[in-house]
Parts: sequence; structure tokens; C-alpha cells
Amino acid sequence: MPARSPFAAKAAENLVNIRARRPLVHNITNFVVMNYTANVLLAAGASPVMAHAAGEVEEMVGLAQSLVLNIGTLTDHWVEAMLLAGKRATSLGKPIVLDPVGAGATAMRTAAAARLLAETGIAVVRGNASEILALGDRQGGGRGVDAVHGVEQAAEAAGRLAVRLGTTLAVTGPVDLVTDGRRAVRVANGHPLMPAVTGTGCSATAIIGAFLAVDPDPLSAAATALAFFGIAGEMAGEKASGPGSLMIGMLDALYMLSPEELAARCRISGV
Amino acid sequence: MPARSPFAAKAAENLVNIRARRPLVHNITNFVVMNYTANVLLAAGASPVMAHAAGEVEEMVGLAQSLVLNIGTLTDHWVEAMLLAGKRATSLGKPIVLDPVGAGATAMRTAAAARLLAETGIAVVRGNASEILALGDRQGGGRGVDAVHGVEQAAEAAGRLAVRLGTTLAVTGPVDLVTDGRRAVRVANGHPLMPAVTGTGCSATAIIGAFLAVDPDPLSAAATALAFFGIAGEMAGEKASGPGSLMIGMLDALYMLSPEELAARCRISGV
Amino acid sequence: MPARSPFAAKAAENLVNIRARRPLVHNITNFVVMNYTANVLLAAGASPVMAHAAGEVEEMVGLAQSLVLNIGTLTDHWVEAMLLAGKRATSLGKPIVLDPVGAGATAMRTAAAARLLAETGIAVVRGNASEILALGDRQGGGRGVDAVHGVEQAAEAAGRLAVRLGTTLAVTGPVDLVTDGRRAVRVANGHPLMPAVTGTGCSATAIIGAFLAVDPDPLSAAATALAFFGIAGEMAGEKASGPGSLMIGMLDALYMLSPEELAARCRISGV
Repeated sequence: MPARSPFAAKAAENLVNIRARRPLVHNITNFVVMNYTANVLLAAGASPVMAHAAGEVEEMVGLAQSLVLNIGTLTDHWVEAMLLAGKRATSLGKPIVLDPVGAGATAMRTAAAARLLAETGIAVVRGNASEILALGDRQGGGRGVDAVHGVEQAAEAAGRLAVRLGTTLAVTGPVDLVTDGRRAVRVANGHPLMPAVTGTGCSATAIIGAFLAVDPDPLSAAATALAFFGIAGEMAGEKASGPGSLMIGMLDALYMLSPEELAARCRISGV
Repeated sequence: MPARSPFAAKAAENLVNIRARRPLVHNITNFVVMNYTANVLLAAGASPVMAHAAGEVEEMVGLAQSLVLNIGTLTDHWVEAMLLAGKRATSLGKPIVLDPVGAGATAMRTAAAARLLAETGIAVVRGNASEILALGDRQGGGRGVDAVHGVEQAAEAAGRLAVRLGTTLAVTGPVDLVTDGRRAVRVANGHPLMPAVTGTGCSATAIIGAFLAVDPDPLSAAATALAFFGIAGEMAGEKASGPGSLMIGMLDALYMLSPEELAARCRISGV
Repeated sequence: MPARSPFAAKAAENLVNIRARRPLVHNITNFVVMNYTANVLLAAGASPVMAHAAGEVEEMVGLAQSLVLNIGTLTDHWVEAMLLAGKRATSLGKPIVLDPVGAGATAMRTAAAARLLAETGIAVVRGNASEILALGDRQGGGRGVDAVHGVEQAAEAAGRLAVRLGTTLAVTGPVDLVTDGRRAVRVANGHPLMPAVTGTGCSATAIIGAFLAVDPDPLSAAATALAFFGIAGEMAGEKASGPGSLMIGMLDALYMLSPEELAARCRISGV
């Protein structure tokens, strides 16, 4: 068993605060995962709202404690809504997490992610290695929405890219890497069945949104969120008969997981 | 155990008729809950259809026995489709139930709900207390899509509002209130885990749509539908390990619940 | 127990190839089933991607091994995207499966299905009997999205229609019929609870998309896909307490089902 990480106490504190404050997390996300990410946020203790109309996103983000932008199933209207919401969140000092689903796979997605990064203040970007690399030096190029690169392959480039983009990058895979260029931590929680459930990546992003609402340090928020989500996967995985029961068991685990158990199982290393 | 309500026999009769007639329930609803509400309606014995294109909603509502309008994840195009479908349903004498998700939270949602109420003949509105109050005297103002008011806080205003709007209001919470201004009943079925599942409110609305297809009295249809849905929540809650297993267990319970057990567990009081 | 069908070995071979190659299946499908079909494809071993923007569908289909078009929750923009993607897939020689959800119920859906059939090269159409009949001699006319005709009622017309449309038709019901006009096979796998889960038809279509990616014969791909999906339903149905647990159990079964067990349980008869 690894020694308890210095992030373990922070993870527990963040979870306590989410359950006490029930932060409103505004999501502009894709059609595939809307239901599951709303359920993931509710199970964790946050209050999700999904709203994407240009006519209301600025007002909604004003009510929210954080904003989640996800470019899966993107169209031009949605990019405009994301920019409106993102600019308002930036001017209000509310944290934003971006999920660049499929960046590198099509030009439209790569361009949308780049524009959101350039025009709004993104606190954290969460993606697989191919998606993250696609934001930078064009070494990306996913295959649909699944990664063709490993996390460790992307580690060095991610550190440089985080500095260049002025954001924190969370590169997820069997072991996750979170880096702001200055610091880098690895999160070793999770279960091998998780990639067999659609929306586990997108839901991890939404959970980072909830943690950003209570933790002002993006690196700490992202790492503790990924540990929390990964541990829920581990707990569900112990009982699951396949991806269906894992998906449902994760909602139960996110709801039942105590701050103490979160701290005890947290596998965050490095600084 | 409370004495058997006079609505208990009506609840059983409505369920028998839904399963025998399989009413087609036309839903124009939000992206978050489309899958779950379709599954809820199927499990209950109804035949759901989701259609929102301006080019087909009038034709589809002509085939349906009732119409469900839900303004979560709204955009302008959807409001237009709801108005087209709602006006056609009104002229054909088909019952409509409205779910004003997030009314009071943003101006766009409050305005959309008001317009649907003004321009179509809504039989029942189902919402939480904040959403219902937002339809009336501006005491509303939700926080995202979750209530900041209690049902009993809203009871008196709801009675007056039902008269003014000429509709039946179903205000849901730990105990639900259904009132048309002249009559008021309370429904005490349900389970405390239900708000931890996204779309339970929206699904309750859809179930009211199915009951309206077989019961011409909006107050009776709404109250018996809420009892049915709440009892499914109780049955699932007895076995659930958290919100995920509750969500799935409710679909099983809606399918398995017999008319006799519905009548026996029904907790509707008042008149 | 029926004698092992000549398709049994082919079914096992197709499943082995899907799991080995993880074909990218591009879906332009309806909002109700996006999450479930993505999960069904992942559980089966394929790699799903959902993309519907006119600006990226041609690029995405270029990356994919097959294309799934589904007209549930249709609007005009989506028809345009389907035509763009379908024409590109046709010119690239990539197989397309079409699900004409609700064809015959509204003029818009019937017209959209007809246009896709006329302007792109559809390898397989999967629908219920009413939907399939609506593509042909106007004997169709569903009731919402549920069938009012039986499969055997449609069998003769389907054979003629397959020839006229130059495609393979998969008409699903308690026993499925797959015909290209020259050959006809019946698939007797499945479970009576499956129609109580929304999206089982749409997911069967998506699974045909995955099988088309590894099997160049549309009739064989469709029949073996339907057997695979039906057996997963049988396995889940043995343990299910209702439609909710069936839905989730099917994802587990699709993931766990071995090629050997698929071959052993396969009930495909005819030529």
C-alpha cells in the first residue's frame, strides 16, 4: 500500500465541501453523456444544470459556481454558446474546465478547442493523451474519440504545453497525469473496465468542475477529483459483472463514498 | 397505515387502462432525460414518442393521446415546436402537461413557460415549488433547476395561481401537492433518494402525461400518477445501494407494480 | 435444440474480428438512444463515435469503418448531415446501415428515409415491420415508433422491396427476418422484455453497423449481429427483474459473451 499522499486530506476536504455547499455546476456538454454526467454530479453531491441556448447561458453561468465545456457532438451554434458562457465565466472569475472530445480527429473539433482556449480563461483541460497533444504541437490526431497515445508518451509535451497555454492539463489513462508545467502529479486510481463505459472521461471532467467550485488550486482540484472518480470506479468494479453494472455501480459508489475512505484509498503521487 | 384514500381505486383503474390501451404519449422534452423518460413510459405500459421538428410535431400530436412539454435544455426552435404542437393538441382536445424546468432561474425559461401557458391549453403543470411560484407572482427564482422553496410554503399561492392560470398545478417535493384551486390533495408516496437521480421530476411529468391519456380529470390523473411513480420509488428504494441502482430499480418497479399493490400503497389525502 | 446454423461459425468469427479490430462506427442517431447505443457498441468491442455537424461528418466518416444513420428525433439539419455523411461513405465504399425510426408515422420521416435510400448506398435497413413496409408500397403507417404489423405479415413484401431498393432488409420482431430478395433467413434469438426497453431496436441497428465493418456480406452481417444482440437479451433476461435490469444486464452480456457461446446459442435458420 502506498504512503498516504499529501493530497489525501485535500481530497476529503473537497468532498466535504461539495456535499455541504452543493455547488451549481453549469454544463454545456454533448448529447451522449448529458444524462450520465448529470447523474454523476448529483451522486457526488453537486447540483448540475445543463443549458446551451445563447439566450440564457450568460445568465445561467452567473448563477453557477463553475462551468464545464465539452465539445463532443459539436455544432457551430454550440461553439458560440460555449464562447458566450466561457467569456462571462472568465469575467466573473468562475473556474472553467474544458473537455476537448475528439480534438485532433476532425479539424472542426481541433479548431473549437483552440478557440475556447484562446478566448476564455480555462482552469483545467481534461482529455486523453491524443486529445491533449492535439491542442499543442500537432502530434495529436485521435481515432474518433479514443486515444492512440499513452499518458507517459505525452507527459513531457504536456508540461511544456501547460505553460504555453497557461492552464492545467489533466491527461487521463490507466494512470492519470495532472500538470501545470511547474508541478506534476500522477493519479493511480481507477478500474480497467471504465473505458468500456461511454462518458467516463466526460464525467471525470464534470467532477473536476465540481471540485473546482470548492478548491481554488486547479492542480489540486483536478487531481483530487480524478482520485475520487477513480475510487468510485474501483468500488463499483469490485462488484460489477460488466460495463453496465459498472456504470450504475459508479453512481452508487460516488454517493456512498465517505471522505475518510476517499482519503484512505487516494493514490496521488509526485509534486 | 393511513386509511385507503378515495383515489386508490382510481389509481388502479388508470394503471389498468394504460396497460390495456398503451396510449401514445408525445414528448417534446429535454436532452438530459429523453432516454430515461422514454424508458419510464414504456415500463409503465405507455408508448412514448419523442419528436420536436416543426415539420412533424403537429402530425405526431394528431396520432398521440397526450402531449408532454418540458423546457429543460431549451432553445428558440424548441419553443416554436412546443407552441405548434401545443396549439394543435389544444384544438384537438388532447391533454397537455407542462414541466417548467428552471422557470425562475433564467428569463428565457420563465418567458417560455408563460408563453406556453398563455397560448395553449395546459391541463397540468408539474414542477418544484420554486418553478411553480415563478409562474405566478414572481416569488420564484430557482437556483438552477433545484427548488429553494418548500411545497407547504407554496401551497396557498399555488391554489390562487391555479385559478388564475385556469390549470391544475402539481407541486412536487417530499409530499406533493396537487390543486386546481377548488380542490387540493397531497401525495405522500416517494423515497428520499429520488432527488439524487436526474430526471425523476421530468419522468413524473411524463407519467402524468400517460395518466391524462386515460383519466379526463386533471387533478385525479396527476395525483394518481404521482402516487404510482412515488410507490415505484419506494419499492426500488427498499433494495437500492444508491442513486444508480434506484434509477434502474424504478424501471423494474414501474413494470412490475400491480394495480392491487398500487391501490394498497397509495397515500393520497385531502380533497 | 435446433441444429447448429451454418451462420453460427460466421457469427463467432465476426465477433472475434470486432474485438480484435475495434472498428470505428460513426453514428448519426437520435437523442433518445445516443448514450445506450454508444454503450452497446463499446460493450460489443467496437469504438463508437457520434458526430452530426455538417462541418465534420464527411471527415469523420473518412476515419470510420461503417456508418449508422437513424432518423428518430429528426430535423432538417440532421437530414442534411446524414446525406453528406452517407454520400461520402458511399463514395469511399464504406457500409451504411439505416434505421427508419417512425417511417410511415409522419410524412417527414417517410420522406427522409426515402431520400437516404435514393441518394446513398445503404447496405442494410433495420426496422420493425411497419417501418419497413412504409419504405415500399405504402402499406406501412406505424403508430408512433411502434409496429402495428407482424414480421411474417411483411415477409413477402420485404423480399420484393429488397430487390426494388437494392438493399438488405432486416425486419425485427419476436423472430427477425433478414432478406436481400434472393436469400432470406430468420433469427429466433431474443427475449420478450426487450421491447420494454427504449433503444433496443436502434441498438440492434448499431450492432449491425459494427458487424458490417468486419463482414462484407450484408445479409450475413445483419443476421449474425441480430443473433448476437438477441442472445445478449436472452442472457440478461434470465436474471432481470424488469426492463431496467434487462437494459443494464444486456451491456454486461454483450461484453462477456464469448464467440463460442455465441455460436452455440445462435438460432439463424433458412438460406
